[in-house]
Amino acid sequence: MLLQDLIDRNQSEWNQYQYHDFIKDLASSKLKLEAFKHYLIQDYIFLKNVGKLYALAIYKSKDIDDLTFFSLGLQNLLQEELAHHIKYCSEQGISEDELKKAEEEISTIAYTRYLLDIANSYSVNEILISLAPCIVGYYGMAEKIGKDISYNPRVEAYKNWIDIYKGKTYKEAVQEYTDFINEKIADIELESKEGERFLKIFRTAIKCEIGFFEQSYGKFHGQGFCLIRKIFG
Amino acid sequence: MLLQDLIDRNQSEWNQYQYHDFIKDLASSKLKLEAFKHYLIQDYIFLKNVGKLYALAIYKSKDIDDLTFFSLGLQNLLQEELAHHIKYCSEQGISEDELKKAEEEISTIAYTRYLLDIANSYSVNEILISLAPCIVGYYGMAEKIGKDISYNPRVEAYKNWIDIYKGKTYKEAVQEYTDFINEKIADIELESKEGERFLKIFRTAIKCEIGFFEQSYGKFHGQGFCLIRKIFG
Amino acid sequence: MLLQDLIDRNQSEWNQYQYHDFIKDLASSKLKLEAFKHYLIQDYIFLKNVGKLYALAIYKSKDIDDLTFFSLGLQNLLQEELAHHIKYCSEQGISEDELKKAEEEISTIAYTRYLLDIANSYSVNEILISLAPCIVGYYGMAEKIGKDISYNPRVEAYKNWIDIYKGKTYKEAVQEYTDFINEKIADIELESKEGERFLKIFRTAIKCEIGFFEQSYGKFHGQGFCLIRKIFG
Amino acid sequence: MLLQDLIDRNQSEWNQYQYHDFIKDLASSKLKLEAFKHYLIQDYIFLKNVGKLYALAIYKSKDIDDLTFFSLGLQNLLQEELAHHIKYCSEQGISEDELKKAEEEISTIAYTRYLLDIANSYSVNEILISLAPCIVGYYGMAEKIGKDISYNPRVEAYKNWIDIYKGKTYKEAVQEYTDFINEKIADIELESKEGERFLKIFRTAIKCEIGFFEQSYGKFHGQGFCLIRKIFG
Repeated sequence: MLLQDLIDRNQSEWNQYQYHDFIKDLASSKLKLEAFKHYLIQDYIFLKNVGKLYALAIYKSKDIDDLTFFSLGLQNLLQEELAHHIKYCSEQGISEDELKKAEEEISTIAYTRYLLDIANSYSVNEILISLAPCIVGYYGMAEKIGKDISYNPRVEAYKNWIDIYKGKTYKEAVQEYTDFINEKIADIELESKEGERFLKIFRTAIKCEIGFFEQSYGKFHGQGFCLIRKIFG
Repeated sequence: MLLQDLIDRNQSEWNQYQYHDFIKDLASSKLKLEAFKHYLIQDYIFLKNVGKLYALAIYKSKDIDDLTFFSLGLQNLLQEELAHHIKYCSEQGISEDELKKAEEEISTIAYTRYLLDIANSYSVNEILISLAPCIVGYYGMAEKIGKDISYNPRVEAYKNWIDIYKGKTYKEAVQEYTDFINEKIADIELESKEGERFLKIFRTAIKCEIGFFEQSYGKFHGQGFCLIRKIFG
Repeated sequence: MLLQDLIDRNQSEWNQYQYHDFIKDLASSKLKLEAFKHYLIQDYIFLKNVGKLYALAIYKSKDIDDLTFFSLGLQNLLQEELAHHIKYCSEQGISEDELKKAEEEISTIAYTRYLLDIANSYSVNEILISLAPCIVGYYGMAEKIGKDISYNPRVEAYKNWIDIYKGKTYKEAVQEYTDFINEKIADIELESKEGERFLKIFRTAIKCEIGFFEQSYGKFHGQGFCLIRKIFG
Repeated sequence: MLLQDLIDRNQSEWNQYQYHDFIKDLASSKLKLEAFKHYLIQDYIFLKNVGKLYALAIYKSKDIDDLTFFSLGLQNLLQEELAHHIKYCSEQGISEDELKKAEEEISTIAYTRYLLDIANSYSVNEILISLAPCIVGYYGMAEKIGKDISYNPRVEAYKNWIDIYKGKTYKEAVQEYTDFINEKIADIELESKEGERFLKIFRTAIKCEIGFFEQSYGKFHGQGFCLIRKIFG
């Protein structure tokens, strides 16, 4: 099997994720800035937990290739991505202190702790698959913007955000991740017990991505999370 | 510090939990049966994960008292509570097969995986505190029903559910849990680093409880979780 | 593959384990009582850690069959085996207090922590395989005593110890364990990456068993562990 | 309490470690090269497991200071220390392939898996303490060489090895580690439950260090591990 098979088998959920209103409104510059800022803050919490996910993957690594892949991933996350995210947030008027003090909301808890439970319960392959909807999905959305998703880069902040995921560096990182995972799962049958487990993990992670967009979108665009947001937000 | 201090310091969240519409409508028999069944199914998934929580607590146990407490807890959960839950669900027309095949919804994922992350990251004390809102809170709600919460036991299923948490067996189990935790945290200052950590864990677990009720209530009583329920439900 | 394949592929280590002088001298009643008592004390520490192993297996269980198997195993260990071990030790003049205060020696640390690392890093199959040399091996030794291993049941304590592993209850438990594992690994090729991992885990666990006998035997029968015993004993 | 208290309370074990024949013979150039090579190979396995320890510490990190400390530690280990160790081994005629294929011996298993179990079971403080005998102890031995321990740098390889631990870079790293740990445990009483746990972890780790030297020394200098080495070596 290939990573693409996991997308194909979850086409409906995948499209709900890739064409979520949060992304469509971001691309068309209709997204409320409050919703975007809310997303950025929760995403900071998400990124820190991806650091923990990589750490557990290092513990679970059984050869030097895995160890190198995940430790470079961790290093890049801590030194590049998180630093960039903090700087970008500061440009949007969100201080680092605000990021650190922010309370996790329910979809953030669900997504991050789901990933960590996978990492604690399973092995390297499952970890790679659980994070794939995030890594590959953001590239997929960026690719669609300007094609399937109408693009109006009126808001500078949104344009800059999109440009990162459209950029060469991100594209190469996604390709590397995809190659790494594809080599590992090449011999596993989609119809096997392992294949079914991979499908379930992948689908749940897609749902968590949708829940993550929904959390910020619904809160400021009047849909969903009506009561829950009073508690968790 | 005592367990009661954690409740007192989170009074607002605690009341949102204890007087949630789900509970008030359950007590007054106004709760839609679909909402209740939905709750029962998600609660089955929750209970299975509490089994995993106890298992991790056994791994983290450092003396024979902890080991005994958690292994009796696990045994009771697997042999009594889960069996009772399956039987009770069957009486409401939910088959065991349906329970097993049910998909986890987002608040269920958030709550269960939050507990498991606490159990993996921390020690026995934090595990005990993370589960306390559930164990002590259900007793608290049962106590309020008929007093602060108006009671109309028109629906047999609801009455039976409430009777369990009002019963002597549950009351004794709650007392035992409270005593066990109080002895462990007696020497810890509320204002210490540890105390702050306990407060945060306790508050987050209360929020997860609210999210758990909200998930089933909002879905069938027209509030909250509007979009998200299309994905996770 | 079958569990027996793992034995066949590690025949040399397996025989070093099964025909270790500790066992031969135990069967012929030549074993020094100090060596046996030393073994019993370290075995108490080992059994407690098997409890932790079962607990982690419960956390890693992904279906109700695994959950049931490991939780019954844990329950049996805590309520039957440990209780019996404590009673048996007391008959040999070792108090429960002495058991609790005993310091772990190096082979005990190696064996128990190796098992726990397997349980933390891997899944249910690897856990089952890591414990198989202990469970199946003790039956194997008991079977050999009186046949390949000369038997002189002069010392009552040794006879009683041997009788347990020769008994019907233990035989049935071993058969159940073997059946459970064989069903799980039936579809896995010995020559696969997974198969190689299983072989390595199984071989290391056999070595740990040898190290465990060696630790008690060498200390009192004048061989091995000369210096190390001054530190760890 | 301070880290130094842990050393003071385990003075006897600490001296057995610091003045072990392995170190005295290394300093006086009397150590057999086979013993040293054997040590280097097992130390490679040890270092890889320290990488896993750091990874688990990252997962357990609860603030940005911990996260930074352990991720820099991991990065330094993987990119500097391991690379240097491989290069140094190659200069002694041990190929990287040989390092990778080497089988773990019993004291290596005991030490590494003990550390990983501490990391899995406990929190950041316990992890720091479990590794302290290694980090601080190597500096302590280097300091003693030429003073309390007679020094004859006849063998170039031994001199180079000692120079690293005598060097400014290592000294600064040890100071940083000590400061980091001292700040964390400053408020903890030595006579408390936590203090007792720290003492026990520290003492066991010292014993594991002794066992580690013993393993290589006894094998080639005719003492200890007589039988066990036939199995594990």
